[in-house]
Amino acid sequence: MSETRIIKPQPISGFPEWLPEEKLVEDHILRIIREEYERYGFTPIETAAVERREILTAKGIVEKEIYALSRLAAGEGEDPSTDMALHFDLTVPTARYVAQNSARLTFPFRRYQIQKVWRGERPQAGRFREFYQADIDVIGNGSLGLLNDAEIPCVINAIFARIGIGEFVIRINNRKLLQGYLLDQGLTAEGVGAALKVIDAIEKVSRERTLADLSAQAGIDAATAARIVDLVTRPVTIADLRAIEGGELYRAGLDELGQVADGLAAFQVPAHRWRIDLAIVRGLDYYTGTVYETQLVANPEVGSICSGGRYEDLASNYTRQKLPGVGISIGVTRLLSRLFDVGLLKPGAATPASVLVTVMDRAQLPYYLGLATTLRAAGIATELFTEGKKVGDQLKYADKKGFRLAVIAGETEIASGTAVLKNLSSGEQSTHPQAGLADAVRQALAG
Amino acid sequence: MSETRIIKPQPISGFPEWLPEEKLVEDHILRIIREEYERYGFTPIETAAVERREILTAKGIVEKEIYALSRLAAGEGEDPSTDMALHFDLTVPTARYVAQNSARLTFPFRRYQIQKVWRGERPQAGRFREFYQADIDVIGNGSLGLLNDAEIPCVINAIFARIGIGEFVIRINNRKLLQGYLLDQGLTAEGVGAALKVIDAIEKVSRERTLADLSAQAGIDAATAARIVDLVTRPVTIADLRAIEGGELYRAGLDELGQVADGLAAFQVPAHRWRIDLAIVRGLDYYTGTVYETQLVANPEVGSICSGGRYEDLASNYTRQKLPGVGISIGVTRLLSRLFDVGLLKPGAATPASVLVTVMDRAQLPYYLGLATTLRAAGIATELFTEGKKVGDQLKYADKKGFRLAVIAGETEIASGTAVLKNLSSGEQSTHPQAGLADAVRQALAG
Repeated sequence: MSETRIIKPQPISGFPEWLPEEKLVEDHILRIIREEYERYGFTPIETAAVERREILTAKGIVEKEIYALSRLAAGEGEDPSTDMALHFDLTVPTARYVAQNSARLTFPFRRYQIQKVWRGERPQAGRFREFYQADIDVIGNGSLGLLNDAEIPCVINAIFARIGIGEFVIRINNRKLLQGYLLDQGLTAEGVGAALKVIDAIEKVSRERTLADLSAQAGIDAATAARIVDLVTRPVTIADLRAIEGGELYRAGLDELGQVADGLAAFQVPAHRWRIDLAIVRGLDYYTGTVYETQLVANPEVGSICSGGRYEDLASNYTRQKLPGVGISIGVTRLLSRLFDVGLLKPGAATPASVLVTVMDRAQLPYYLGLATTLRAAGIATELFTEGKKVGDQLKYADKKGFRLAVIAGETEIASGTAVLKNLSSGEQSTHPQAGLADAVRQALAG
Repeated sequence: MSETRIIKPQPISGFPEWLPEEKLVEDHILRIIREEYERYGFTPIETAAVERREILTAKGIVEKEIYALSRLAAGEGEDPSTDMALHFDLTVPTARYVAQNSARLTFPFRRYQIQKVWRGERPQAGRFREFYQADIDVIGNGSLGLLNDAEIPCVINAIFARIGIGEFVIRINNRKLLQGYLLDQGLTAEGVGAALKVIDAIEKVSRERTLADLSAQAGIDAATAARIVDLVTRPVTIADLRAIEGGELYRAGLDELGQVADGLAAFQVPAHRWRIDLAIVRGLDYYTGTVYETQLVANPEVGSICSGGRYEDLASNYTRQKLPGVGISIGVTRLLSRLFDVGLLKPGAATPASVLVTVMDRAQLPYYLGLATTLRAAGIATELFTEGKKVGDQLKYADKKGFRLAVIAGETEIASGTAVLKNLSSGEQSTHPQAGLADAVRQALAG
């Protein structure tokens, strides 16, 4: 046989891949997200990984970030390019999907979508070029009730309470209210835009810097700037905001925010899990009402773990139907990576199975195969050790992979139709008839 | 506001997208596959969608089928190409992943992988350019026991029995045995290769055509050709095969096949779910021992719904470690598409939720929100109707989306802390106190 040339595989920067013990944690998180999305009545959709280039660039998005598809082996003189490119988020594909299928969908359309997206970012720590997003949106046809804006934080609360990464708080604002307040301070529309940009960065810089930026970039006088900074950085209630005499836009935003706050209370979201926070801006154009960010209380350095908001019109580039909506996105890959970094999540076992059935005497294989079949039939994820090794080596393998239990059977057990169940962390052993083995495993796993 | 230019979205040929009621069926199938893979102790991995081009083309694969990534907005005079391309299967990525991480994996490495793959096929009916594959493989380091070859069909059996698409049969062969038999008939190595190609197509053509092809393409005389065709087209048992006096390769293959058959019996795979079938070839190069195909008994026109086999060395292009393995692949997208076509699977509801909580009196919103919260807390997937419409319209919406139950509460129910549960298929209604609503829903869903 001729010597094969070896191409040594190397990781590709920005394209993360988990080891099995990490992937099982990711799957656990994805399962919680999926279950909670469904519990709230969101239905799954999945769009192709690619869109036509004209769809992706319809809004004039920065094209630098997009990976286009080309034919690797186009013939001599052939144009290798195609009209397709990988999607860079799930919003554009959903907009296109909803516009394309609107006659076959029922509105309000409540969809979730958990898929990889791709961005041609320059690789750097914490920046991924391929990552999972897990989005929900409720999309109305023509109009969409504010009750949806109140229900979204319930879903966030349900998910992060189950993931169990410490206390978190959903910070809620309304862009109409904030913009109205700024207009009421005498700012021009242009000044409001500049001020929002400064407020968006308020947590990354000092108070002095924010005041200076408001003056320099939005042309705001010192007293007004101080008043704005005071309001957006202090805890406020709906009652506090009602005490401010505002213009029409401010009052419209306050009315919406009040309805969202009432809804949250009626949905029984615990009061410490959310707060009104006027510093939340979420970019400059897309969102038009309610906006959300979610922060870990003890680990604010992780950044927002879930963000979103209300928009006027999802798919104005693809249809003349007006499709208002509200939604959130969880950047699962980034979140997981950060949670591993700060130690809030830890890789565990390298197998989804709890039990390893060892094989002591290969002449008695059918007995061991029967044990494995019994456990699997009872719904217990079980691996059978398939190789000809000593039981001691099989138990080392079980430890290495992180099995919780091992089943062992020697001459005595086989003769009596029993098996030994060994707890691999405590070392405890007990003998059970084959018919009682599944129950014993269930008890040991529950204990 | 300026008029936005509308880009009318169109499906992209070969990139299938499901409607919600279809996607829920796909998710149901994917969930069964995932659960059964895990029940048998396979651990999930996921590789990046892209590989370096040199990895994908290391074996000299037909490059026409590969989509390469290029930067959509490379600057003037810049080369837009990258060294990355989309994977076209899950075998090459797994080989690369195992070679790259071998020091951090525990062998035998039992992995499953469910991901999209991409192929630049010319679009035609039933050919997809983006589709799901769901693979399992057991990979040994240096060697791998035959017990694995017997366990793989157990997993296939468990999956398709649960999916419930009628009876199926796993057809099992051993390439050593078949090749040995052909050599024993006096064929040269070249003649064996040609004969395998003809046998691979045996079910698509007449017996006469096969005989003629064996003569024309493999230079086999009429009597030998008839003997070969008889053997590979008739039902055979291990005992039948033992009665044939064969050479070394034949006997090695028969010994392997015998062990697999014994293992299947010991794993209690029902006898009607598998058979030895010497017509199964599975291509020409990759597989070296056991090979599998799976057929629907009543719908053979669907083709093999799950195929695979044993190979000598997974990753010879990426490492000098010898990594033998055995595995199977389910082409989920193609399978689902065919099952929809022949009516073995049907789209159902367009929501994962079973219950719609309707809102009769918007002044009493907190009451309805409390009902929804109660059901969700009990683990029942529930949608709350969020828009201001009449209850009649809300019930039409519930019908359209396929909810099984609706919750209705008017003045009387609210005053008494109860709600009406309506079965949307039977029309049956019953009244329950709020505290008993979740139990009533569970009973209705079980009934």
